Amino acid sequence: MSKRLFIPGPIDVSQDILDCMSTQVIGHRGKEASQLQQDISEKLQKLFYTNSTILLSTSSGTGLMEGAIRSCTSKRAAVFSCGSFGNRWYKIGISNMIPVDLFEVDLGRAISPEMVDKVLSTGKYDLITVTHNETSTGIRNPIEAIGEVVKKYNDIIYCVDAVSSAGGIKIEVDKLGIDICITSVQKALGLPPGMAICTFSNKAVQRAKKVPYRGTYFDLLAMYEYIVSKNYQYPSTPSLSHMFALNFQLNQILKEGLENRFARHEDMARIVRNWAREHFQIFTDENYLSNTLTVIKNTKGISVSNLNKELQKYGYEIANGYGGLKEKTFRISHMGDYTVDDVKSLLKNINEILGFKTDLSLL
Amino acid sequence: MSKRLFIPGPIDVSQDILDCMSTQVIGHRGKEASQLQQDISEKLQKLFYTNSTILLSTSSGTGLMEGAIRSCTSKRAAVFSCGSFGNRWYKIGISNMIPVDLFEVDLGRAISPEMVDKVLSTGKYDLITVTHNETSTGIRNPIEAIGEVVKKYNDIIYCVDAVSSAGGIKIEVDKLGIDICITSVQKALGLPPGMAICTFSNKAVQRAKKVPYRGTYFDLLAMYEYIVSKNYQYPSTPSLSHMFALNFQLNQILKEGLENRFARHEDMARIVRNWAREHFQIFTDENYLSNTLTVIKNTKGISVSNLNKELQKYGYEIANGYGGLKEKTFRISHMGDYTVDDVKSLLKNINEILGFKTDLSLL
Repeated sequence: MSKRLFIPGPIDVSQDILDCMSTQVIGHRGKEASQLQQDISEKLQKLFYTNSTILLSTSSGTGLMEGAIRSCTSKRAAVFSCGSFGNRWYKIGISNMIPVDLFEVDLGRAISPEMVDKVLSTGKYDLITVTHNETSTGIRNPIEAIGEVVKKYNDIIYCVDAVSSAGGIKIEVDKLGIDICITSVQKALGLPPGMAICTFSNKAVQRAKKVPYRGTYFDLLAMYEYIVSKNYQYPSTPSLSHMFALNFQLNQILKEGLENRFARHEDMARIVRNWAREHFQIFTDENYLSNTLTVIKNTKGISVSNLNKELQKYGYEIANGYGGLKEKTFRISHMGDYTVDDVKSLLKNINEILGFKTDLSLL
Repeated sequence: MSKRLFIPGPIDVSQDILDCMSTQVIGHRGKEASQLQQDISEKLQKLFYTNSTILLSTSSGTGLMEGAIRSCTSKRAAVFSCGSFGNRWYKIGISNMIPVDLFEVDLGRAISPEMVDKVLSTGKYDLITVTHNETSTGIRNPIEAIGEVVKKYNDIIYCVDAVSSAGGIKIEVDKLGIDICITSVQKALGLPPGMAICTFSNKAVQRAKKVPYRGTYFDLLAMYEYIVSKNYQYPSTPSLSHMFALNFQLNQILKEGLENRFARHEDMARIVRNWAREHFQIFTDENYLSNTLTVIKNTKGISVSNLNKELQKYGYEIANGYGGLKEKTFRISHMGDYTVDDVKSLLKNINEILGFKTDLSLL
């Protein structure tokens, strides 16, 4: 298996998963398709620690973000943002004429439960969105403590963008009171891009029933009702190839053990952080570090794009800073099926290029 | 290659295309991805006989139908429908709060240019939708003659759903004056489902600029602008696996030759029609028969679902009638990479099951 892409998704996919992508197509209205989709759902319920219905969408995660805010905002949405992917929720709301307000924190800082409490106490909102893992800054927001705040209020739909965390970081959807938890398959789940996933709670179902214009393709209520009435089938023709691969990969994940998988991500994160602290600085608030991605402050003023060009000669790729953080930061992802050894190989190559001496065995 | 699914998509996919689906993932923001997407675009421009920009969407065709009507209706949309997939345009419009009117013809009949002329002469509309190939009734609507009508009027956006025809039936997008021509990869293009395609004319670009709330994921203007400014890249992470397979398949299609491919579809259609006329009746108006799908009137009152169960023992599958036409009709698709011999094998098996004697060599 060639391990190459250490960008925050898509990441390299193991050969056995790639092989599943080339499974011959089946009719999407047959029993075999229903069974496949039911199997996937049941495994994803374990991954998300939830009894909520699982919805699969042939799209990127952005599509389900649009579906969530559009299907379930009846009064007004509060978007909490600590970076580009938080801001995306706001843009989606605006582009759909949804009443929405944006509450931002500085780049590199986390959203605080107190901030959420203050906003919700106005009584103006009936849906909130939080980015679990902000891919532009490396922040992991405290969705557990925010969940406790949300529980104090009545009838708030709690939406979490877990695109770059689910499968790598534990998210106990039901315990946290998350109504819609969204992810994509090409991040910590380790598949090729092309499919998104969300959980959809009963509370969200009831809310969507009160929202008149939910669109068609991302109408989460229509998807939910189709799944219930048509035995795990979908209104539109889905990407069956991704479903074959996802079903296989969920078996692998459950075989590895969820706790083991989360621990492996923590180990990879620790190594990258220690290396970064030795040679640069961590950009992100140290209290809210992500286990799937590390954003490093370019304190040495190296050319990140040159580093990446050199790295590619070794067969590796990392990510430059996102948007306005380009060259000021760089990003190393450590998610999916990568191992501690893969991460060390990457760092060894960076060390060689930059002339660093780190004893990687000590990290 | 096992040829099995004679349903109107998804259909069986040849092994070499399936193999492309398991290509290792690349970064979707790199030069390699740009080149891949540019290659695909240029080949699709040939397939559609157009200079319009090509948009690829990780979704089913329904998603791009939503994108088209939502991005480009400024005044009011007129939906012309001759079946379930025509009606879908109307439902999409309503679910998005778009001013829209539905003009229907009886099932099995085609939309007439006169009807379109009469509707447009009211001056109320600035976008029309027509289903090229109505998968529920087997009608191929006269999009050429309708195109002539549309040209009489100023500033009408002409949208065509070519989901089950493009790649199997010639559609000269520019000559016909089509602004948005939509298809999906799992029909006559012969890929696994998971990606949709549309052409997007300059007129459509200008119109979309006047429409304020176009949503996010299916905002066709945003996709267009991203492609232009970011060198054939997409706002969201696309299904790269489908792009690898699509690029390969377009090479195969151009190698076969577009005219040869269309002729092969016509040959397959002729055989199925002749067989159907001998033993049943054709459901569809004989003047508007599709070359990718035949809908057969169940004049013998056979049990279609039993026939399908028996057929599956031989490793084949056809489709029952759609919606209210279930058991009253059944559908045989003949699209993609199937050959005349594949179609004859299917019919030979149906003959055996139903006790028909047809000299297939004479069809």
